[in-house]
Amino acid sequence: MSNIEHADVWIQKEYSPENSHCYGCGVANPYGHGLKTYLTGAETVSRFTPDAMYSGGVPGNVYGGMIASLFDCHGAAAAASFHRQHSEDPDGPLGRFVTASLHVNFLAPTPQSRELTVSGVLKSIEGRKVWVEMTLKAGETLCATAEMLAIALRK
Amino acid sequence: MSNIEHADVWIQKEYSPENSHCYGCGVANPYGHGLKTYLTGAETVSRFTPDAMYSGGVPGNVYGGMIASLFDCHGAAAAASFHRQHSEDPDGPLGRFVTASLHVNFLAPTPQSRELTVSGVLKSIEGRKVWVEMTLKAGETLCATAEMLAIALRK
Repeated sequence: MSNIEHADVWIQKEYSPENSHCYGCGVANPYGHGLKTYLTGAETVSRFTPDAMYSGGVPGNVYGGMIASLFDCHGAAAAASFHRQHSEDPDGPLGRFVTASLHVNFLAPTPQSRELTVSGVLKSIEGRKVWVEMTLKAGETLCATAEMLAIALRK
Repeated sequence: MSNIEHADVWIQKEYSPENSHCYGCGVANPYGHGLKTYLTGAETVSRFTPDAMYSGGVPGNVYGGMIASLFDCHGAAAAASFHRQHSEDPDGPLGRFVTASLHVNFLAPTPQSRELTVSGVLKSIEGRKVWVEMTLKAGETLCATAEMLAIALRK
């Protein structure tokens, strides 16, 4: 992994001010999770440690809604970043993508009090549509996978 | 709609104490959303009004992670309730189900400051596996649909 994660600019930070209020990842939302997603080569990555209150039914495991939330915000950012990376102007402005569908497979309990790593790769692009495949790991344990279809908002 | 929603016992309230800590719906989690799901006939229903801080990128719409969270907790409760309803002992104890997969389709922006209604119906049961189909509406507007596969925890 490169040290791009220490860069001052992550994908969500490039969202326009009027699109930066997301509870999951918006820099203009002071109450939210503030998820940060970075593009490094052909992969996107986010690291996040949920607070203890976000337990599932049994304390010690993260609740499913948090896992889906991390995938949702990560995937929309990844779609925007991959779309620009494969555009005619890879140094141009970033688009804003919204989720059309999100499919999460929960494979193993996701432990609390651990840093979680969400990663994304591009599956395909068709015009304004971008498909992203994602994983969520706790250390080496693959806890969940997801597929998203995201669509660019019209400017 | 019957007035069963005013009953003192909703599905999540029947979860055993050790399984009641979910951030989304557990009665033993004082910080969470406290989603309540009721079985009424062949349908499950939850009503929930997200706080204003749970906005998407643009204020005025609910963020996707909240929508997935509502489906996740609703679906697991619905699975438990439908499974008992179709068992040999429909008045017996409630099982506890966890999500194996959740597929959400986002059809229209979900408005904030509105009561949202999540509804579920049983698709099929095979042993410990239950498939549930769900909708999320704001008034008459269908904002999202979801399918879940939930599996009963072994006792």
